Amino acid sequence: MEKLISGIHKFQADVFAPNSDFFRKLVEGQHPQALFITCSDSRMVPDLICQTDPGELFVLRNAGNIVPPYTPGAASGEAATIEYAIRGLGIKDIVICGHTRCGAMQAVAEPSATANMPRVRQWLEHAQASSEIVCTCYGHLTGEARAKVMVQENVLTQVEHLRTHPTVAAALAAGELKLHAWVYKMETGDVFAYDPESGQFTKLATDADPTQSYPLLPRRPATPLSTADAI
Amino acid sequence: MEKLISGIHKFQADVFAPNSDFFRKLVEGQHPQALFITCSDSRMVPDLICQTDPGELFVLRNAGNIVPPYTPGAASGEAATIEYAIRGLGIKDIVICGHTRCGAMQAVAEPSATANMPRVRQWLEHAQASSEIVCTCYGHLTGEARAKVMVQENVLTQVEHLRTHPTVAAALAAGELKLHAWVYKMETGDVFAYDPESGQFTKLATDADPTQSYPLLPRRPATPLSTADAI
Amino acid sequence: MEKLISGIHKFQADVFAPNSDFFRKLVEGQHPQALFITCSDSRMVPDLICQTDPGELFVLRNAGNIVPPYTPGAASGEAATIEYAIRGLGIKDIVICGHTRCGAMQAVAEPSATANMPRVRQWLEHAQASSEIVCTCYGHLTGEARAKVMVQENVLTQVEHLRTHPTVAAALAAGELKLHAWVYKMETGDVFAYDPESGQFTKLATDADPTQSYPLLPRRPATPLSTADAI
Amino acid sequence: MEKLISGIHKFQADVFAPNSDFFRKLVEGQHPQALFITCSDSRMVPDLICQTDPGELFVLRNAGNIVPPYTPGAASGEAATIEYAIRGLGIKDIVICGHTRCGAMQAVAEPSATANMPRVRQWLEHAQASSEIVCTCYGHLTGEARAKVMVQENVLTQVEHLRTHPTVAAALAAGELKLHAWVYKMETGDVFAYDPESGQFTKLATDADPTQSYPLLPRRPATPLSTADAI
Repeated sequence: MEKLISGIHKFQADVFAPNSDFFRKLVEGQHPQALFITCSDSRMVPDLICQTDPGELFVLRNAGNIVPPYTPGAASGEAATIEYAIRGLGIKDIVICGHTRCGAMQAVAEPSATANMPRVRQWLEHAQASSEIVCTCYGHLTGEARAKVMVQENVLTQVEHLRTHPTVAAALAAGELKLHAWVYKMETGDVFAYDPESGQFTKLATDADPTQSYPLLPRRPATPLSTADAI
Repeated sequence: MEKLISGIHKFQADVFAPNSDFFRKLVEGQHPQALFITCSDSRMVPDLICQTDPGELFVLRNAGNIVPPYTPGAASGEAATIEYAIRGLGIKDIVICGHTRCGAMQAVAEPSATANMPRVRQWLEHAQASSEIVCTCYGHLTGEARAKVMVQENVLTQVEHLRTHPTVAAALAAGELKLHAWVYKMETGDVFAYDPESGQFTKLATDADPTQSYPLLPRRPATPLSTADAI
Repeated sequence: MEKLISGIHKFQADVFAPNSDFFRKLVEGQHPQALFITCSDSRMVPDLICQTDPGELFVLRNAGNIVPPYTPGAASGEAATIEYAIRGLGIKDIVICGHTRCGAMQAVAEPSATANMPRVRQWLEHAQASSEIVCTCYGHLTGEARAKVMVQENVLTQVEHLRTHPTVAAALAAGELKLHAWVYKMETGDVFAYDPESGQFTKLATDADPTQSYPLLPRRPATPLSTADAI
Repeated sequence: MEKLISGIHKFQADVFAPNSDFFRKLVEGQHPQALFITCSDSRMVPDLICQTDPGELFVLRNAGNIVPPYTPGAASGEAATIEYAIRGLGIKDIVICGHTRCGAMQAVAEPSATANMPRVRQWLEHAQASSEIVCTCYGHLTGEARAKVMVQENVLTQVEHLRTHPTVAAALAAGELKLHAWVYKMETGDVFAYDPESGQFTKLATDADPTQSYPLLPRRPATPLSTADAI
């Protein structure tokens, strides 16, 4: 905690004070560009990776970047945060961003890892589809290759869950929302986006035209992801 | 989204590449210093405010920095993330950090604001205790003063909820966990911590001895009950 | 049932008739001194142990003297009874009183005991924190000593749950409610109260000044937050 | 609280000490004669009214002596306590005992009474059937007469709810359980039992043969209760 507290004083002196005009303007309200849903993993820092300033990313984080399917009547932090982003803030883009070396995804693959964590195990049931896709389509993979494809498939599973939320479904139907499935590759700093054309995750190209290249994710083709190279 | 994608390329060139040793070391695993629970608000950037590096803060974010009380049988992202932090990562400090100008807290106070957001309204029921405390104890306050005290009381409410999670209760009883109630003041960049001695939020002082000044919020001393005699 | 029915006639002849003035006065309304939350166990008779008359104790009883944490949207007998005590009756003291030799607490410790009682097992999940505290802090205890500490820790767990109820939180914040954690020792007839100073359960002394010795279990002082300056 | 604490010392000196053999025998275990479900009302003291000793009545109490219908998946104190009584303790008789002058039943009839008690109002939804029966069949009644019939009908409603619990249904089907619908009349000290033969509540007669007179409640006849005299 010492480091956090001295960090806060450093922030006040070195960041807030010289930019107080910027920060005071923020007080009036937020107009974020996207809802960024990602893992609680400490090595994943959305505003660092996207080089965004305060006020630009509305962020939802939990273990495994999981979005439970819409469950009527259940008070859910994920459901509320997504609804607030769309209806309260008018957000037009939702990114679900997984990452390699994800402890939650490793726990999905290896249930013994959560023997003393019953609440974690129950939560990871929401990644069960990812796990069964991996068993069904990627039975030949082991170790790191299997872990990597699990991370990718899980991002796609969570995008499917996202579609089940009434606010998301309505905004998609109205053409007012785009969904993006990303994976941050911790080993290289690259970010891969799911390309529905090819049915693969591809590296975000420098000269990409984002409105063209990363459109609304349609239902995915039923072909497995390539495991040859890529991510 | 254009800004995010160009930001990612800037991150790769200006941040990852010059620090690739640091980032590659992170691939081996994470050893974060704290679980930082905060709001999804885009103006709240934990790693900026605490000046922490990737790998230092395990972060849980949702609308209103809410921790539902432990509900057996309900798969909850908050319950799982908290359990993973304590049991999976051995985290010893949990910070719940609210912030002024919080849209979620304004919506608690003004239910008409969520007329078309039923999932938000349901989620904010978890801040109902905060709302009733404000009505009971601060009936004389209006406007911004009322909004500010709501934010503070809500952080304390969520700390109470946190204590109901079995993993938290067990770690507190064993003296292996500290809870911290913070509020980030957006107008000035200051962070206030709840001081159980005075019963007030006070500004984090530059020369504070964190182990002394911001201790375990006392429910009970961290010593186990005597089993020698007594009952 | 024979015994109950003849008991009722005995009550009418020996208790009601000679005290009909007292009983008829009660018809006008109740003004109980405390909400007494205890176990359904037949050996626990609150009005006998406290030597109270009809009209003095408002009583909530279920298996294990459990108070589920506040769950928005869930109709709960415990939540309603607590709220009615505070808002409907103006009660200022809530006692949660466990007891040694508690079958529910034994079942928490020994899950096989509830193999054919799925509803019991689910309910006892609300004592999961107690169980994990015992495993974490009292691993060296076995048998009766372990059972006894489970009973005590469970009373404290349920007090934590109690605090999450909005009506309780608001009354505590307003300084209008005191919480008391008690254990009835069936072997000796003694009652022990949790003393937050020492962090131990201590026998209720004959000459105790109750306002001093068994105060509000401190989460925070009952003074409202300062709203003058600070944050 | 002073009165409770001095009462406890009186209990120890005047009740426990002279009967310590009796109390110490109880330590070995409980073998109660019945599960007694009643209201939290302080004027209702089951062991006083039935003149039972510690160890004889297993008691479930909440506001309004309500038994929610069985709801799969919901952890419920009522469901668990009932199941424990039948399967854990082998109880063969369940009494649901309402009482005249019941504040909860008055609140069902007069919703404005719970304007600031949302959790109470939600809980009393479980007495909605009683309320609609009263509106449908007893529209001509007002005031005290209406209140009295509400109390009676509500006991019958809760008996219906009780039947929906799997453990109850199974024990009833096996002929191992009897249900009893009672009302305690606060004004006179009398207890009335529902007699399925006549479809009316009748005063428990001194010379009643309980095995004959108060048998397993079958589904009630569809005739309204008499409101002429009786209770």
